[in-house]
Amino acid sequence: MQVELLEYTPNPETTVAMAARLCYSSSDISQLAAGMSQEEASRLIRMLYRMGHLSPFEHASFTFGISGVSRAMSHQLVRHRIASYSQKSQRYVAERGFQYVLPPSIRNNEEARRLFAAEMAAIEQTYSRLVEAGIPREDARYVLPNACETQLVATFNARSLLNFFRLRCCTRAQWEIRAVANKMLLLVRKVAPTIFEKAGPSCISEGVCHEGKMSCGRIERLRRTGRAGLGSL
Amino acid sequence: MQVELLEYTPNPETTVAMAARLCYSSSDISQLAAGMSQEEASRLIRMLYRMGHLSPFEHASFTFGISGVSRAMSHQLVRHRIASYSQKSQRYVAERGFQYVLPPSIRNNEEARRLFAAEMAAIEQTYSRLVEAGIPREDARYVLPNACETQLVATFNARSLLNFFRLRCCTRAQWEIRAVANKMLLLVRKVAPTIFEKAGPSCISEGVCHEGKMSCGRIERLRRTGRAGLGSL
Amino acid sequence: MQVELLEYTPNPETTVAMAARLCYSSSDISQLAAGMSQEEASRLIRMLYRMGHLSPFEHASFTFGISGVSRAMSHQLVRHRIASYSQKSQRYVAERGFQYVLPPSIRNNEEARRLFAAEMAAIEQTYSRLVEAGIPREDARYVLPNACETQLVATFNARSLLNFFRLRCCTRAQWEIRAVANKMLLLVRKVAPTIFEKAGPSCISEGVCHEGKMSCGRIERLRRTGRAGLGSL
Amino acid sequence: MQVELLEYTPNPETTVAMAARLCYSSSDISQLAAGMSQEEASRLIRMLYRMGHLSPFEHASFTFGISGVSRAMSHQLVRHRIASYSQKSQRYVAERGFQYVLPPSIRNNEEARRLFAAEMAAIEQTYSRLVEAGIPREDARYVLPNACETQLVATFNARSLLNFFRLRCCTRAQWEIRAVANKMLLLVRKVAPTIFEKAGPSCISEGVCHEGKMSCGRIERLRRTGRAGLGSL
Repeated sequence: MQVELLEYTPNPETTVAMAARLCYSSSDISQLAAGMSQEEASRLIRMLYRMGHLSPFEHASFTFGISGVSRAMSHQLVRHRIASYSQKSQRYVAERGFQYVLPPSIRNNEEARRLFAAEMAAIEQTYSRLVEAGIPREDARYVLPNACETQLVATFNARSLLNFFRLRCCTRAQWEIRAVANKMLLLVRKVAPTIFEKAGPSCISEGVCHEGKMSCGRIERLRRTGRAGLGSL
Repeated sequence: MQVELLEYTPNPETTVAMAARLCYSSSDISQLAAGMSQEEASRLIRMLYRMGHLSPFEHASFTFGISGVSRAMSHQLVRHRIASYSQKSQRYVAERGFQYVLPPSIRNNEEARRLFAAEMAAIEQTYSRLVEAGIPREDARYVLPNACETQLVATFNARSLLNFFRLRCCTRAQWEIRAVANKMLLLVRKVAPTIFEKAGPSCISEGVCHEGKMSCGRIERLRRTGRAGLGSL
Repeated sequence: MQVELLEYTPNPETTVAMAARLCYSSSDISQLAAGMSQEEASRLIRMLYRMGHLSPFEHASFTFGISGVSRAMSHQLVRHRIASYSQKSQRYVAERGFQYVLPPSIRNNEEARRLFAAEMAAIEQTYSRLVEAGIPREDARYVLPNACETQLVATFNARSLLNFFRLRCCTRAQWEIRAVANKMLLLVRKVAPTIFEKAGPSCISEGVCHEGKMSCGRIERLRRTGRAGLGSL
Repeated sequence: MQVELLEYTPNPETTVAMAARLCYSSSDISQLAAGMSQEEASRLIRMLYRMGHLSPFEHASFTFGISGVSRAMSHQLVRHRIASYSQKSQRYVAERGFQYVLPPSIRNNEEARRLFAAEMAAIEQTYSRLVEAGIPREDARYVLPNACETQLVATFNARSLLNFFRLRCCTRAQWEIRAVANKMLLLVRKVAPTIFEKAGPSCISEGVCHEGKMSCGRIERLRRTGRAGLGSL
């Protein structure tokens, strides 16, 4: 799995802070943009986060390259509708010799690993034979597994990302999308540290857990140490 | 494949027409709602369509039950972001003895059909063995094929549906999503005949084709007979 | 101010519950729809709300007629982007003898009321004179006040409504949009009582307040009586 | 009126082209990003535009500062829902001595100009007196005119911008939002010339006019000179 930050809005934090400042100020936009220090931007961003006034975060957007992930993962990812996606097409791109994602639980179980690898090889062979028998790629691909690797370019704004991290960095999220989300979070924290300093699952970002009986228990540990809702920085 | 219209906004056409009328009228809303005949609604809806003033169509929404479709199809479907989806989860629902979708090109090719059926049976067995070997369902499902059946509840408003039909009723769309789109169109035409009278691929609804060299040629036939852009009613 | 519920998805609660059930069930859609009692729907809806699993709420939508409200209010309302609007146009509809909204703080202050009424009359006269002087309506309206009455048809799904009520039923929201939100809430509670039983500002629906120093203090009273986050039913 | 391009996705054209290329290629993302010349990007972008395959355009976003515009304009602007806005609040920012927008039709009519200026002065005085009489700003502002100046930060992706220009650069659009749209278009054309080379009203970008009897007639002139749908470059 590989996740890259391809492009992002320059100066994401001063852009967000300046937009927020505009709402409550009679100064004009160029003055606001000029006079904004990083320190002031950070202070404002923390206040917005605390008040739940998240719309200014939408002015910063982030474009990721995501590859070596399964179509099981991508089917979950594209359910996040406040984002933009371009994905490798199985209709148009041949999948002979496709790569596949091996779930850790299978990697760590010798019997399962053997069964899985054999099945992947069998599927690959069937796919090739279907194509040779004259079946169009877009139909031969019906035999391909969820594990089949895909790649996407995905663009999210910072507000939508905060929501994505809240849901998908949770230990109850499926492991693969969680791994992608964690990598995305590390990347955006480098370029927008204040915006994302408290990003993460709701136990970390808000001090609450909605999982009920399914909870992983982290919220209890965070509460005991007084760290619930403080973020991971 | 089964597509049902589960629920929809009552009186979709007078609702849309009344909302449109409101924009240009000093009458109040209850007067507008009271005095709207179906004939007048139809006339207004045709005018809106012609002027490309499509926002009033958003006031009517339609909820579909879609089952017996592949996850290849559902992955395409959920890319339409101006809609709402609830989909059967492969993480939580066991897939032993899963049903699968057989593409017509494979059904009609004896060798391919045999290869495909054998592979589906092999995958089913591998899935079951992985689960028996202690692999969680959410990981065992990585072996499952794109052909695996799923079911969804999907809600679209009429404007988003018109766009969906424009793209997915096109002969260049993938056959399975096209079949779903055609069934959806038949269902909504019964309850909102004027809104959807010109719905369909862009050759039918607008008299244009964007497919260039990939065009199926229907636009040429429609033009020769003077029927391009006239809808299919 | 008048708010009516013009249309809504029939059986909103069983529709939502059935869609939610589908995600975790191997039953097919028609079975699910058939066998759902209101009691079971209510139980499921409460569980969804508790887990923050709100996407199934999107399958129910509600169309409102809103009139006798100011353009100050409508400018705020249309900032809610996950909704559909049709609004009376000041470009096309003449505003001679326009109605206006009188804020309670002005109504209750004799001097202010007199100043306000005189100004409204003066503006009306200037608008008419501008039109008589040959100025097009779309430009003459630049003189019209925020208080000028407008009317809209607005459609929200239940999830977007829950968010709207969380923000706009808060005592810190502007009084006019809060009054509209409260009327909308009363209307939808009649037809979808379980979906909206905990709807309201975040103190009522979630037991938290984000207003900080600006808080109205209700959260403290709710906490003292053990009612924070319990809803208002 | 002042419109600035505050920030935008760096390399907007290669970003879009690379995302588009990904859909049809087995190359990996870093290879695609590395090997993309501006010439190749331009060629791809033109093909996407021609095929109506506009989703890759969403990966480039543009943030504008817009000031010296009326609240009549901003009420129209924020109806575009696939965009993000931060706007100066009349609830929190005092409007004594407010600036206002003077429509050209009024500027060019001496009688109208005099009436309008006098009314603006009267409104300003009434606003001040209401505040002095103890009326909160959020209610005193009900007297303020549509002409009252506001400022916004607005972020659009390139696809949403193309739609915005199609609707709002049309001569039938209201003059003020059209002027803003034209300025925005000039700004983005400088930094993404191929993406926006055909942007503009539908007569220019697509060679069609939906205005019917209300048409300004430009489409006829463009057709006579063979320039309909060719863009304005």
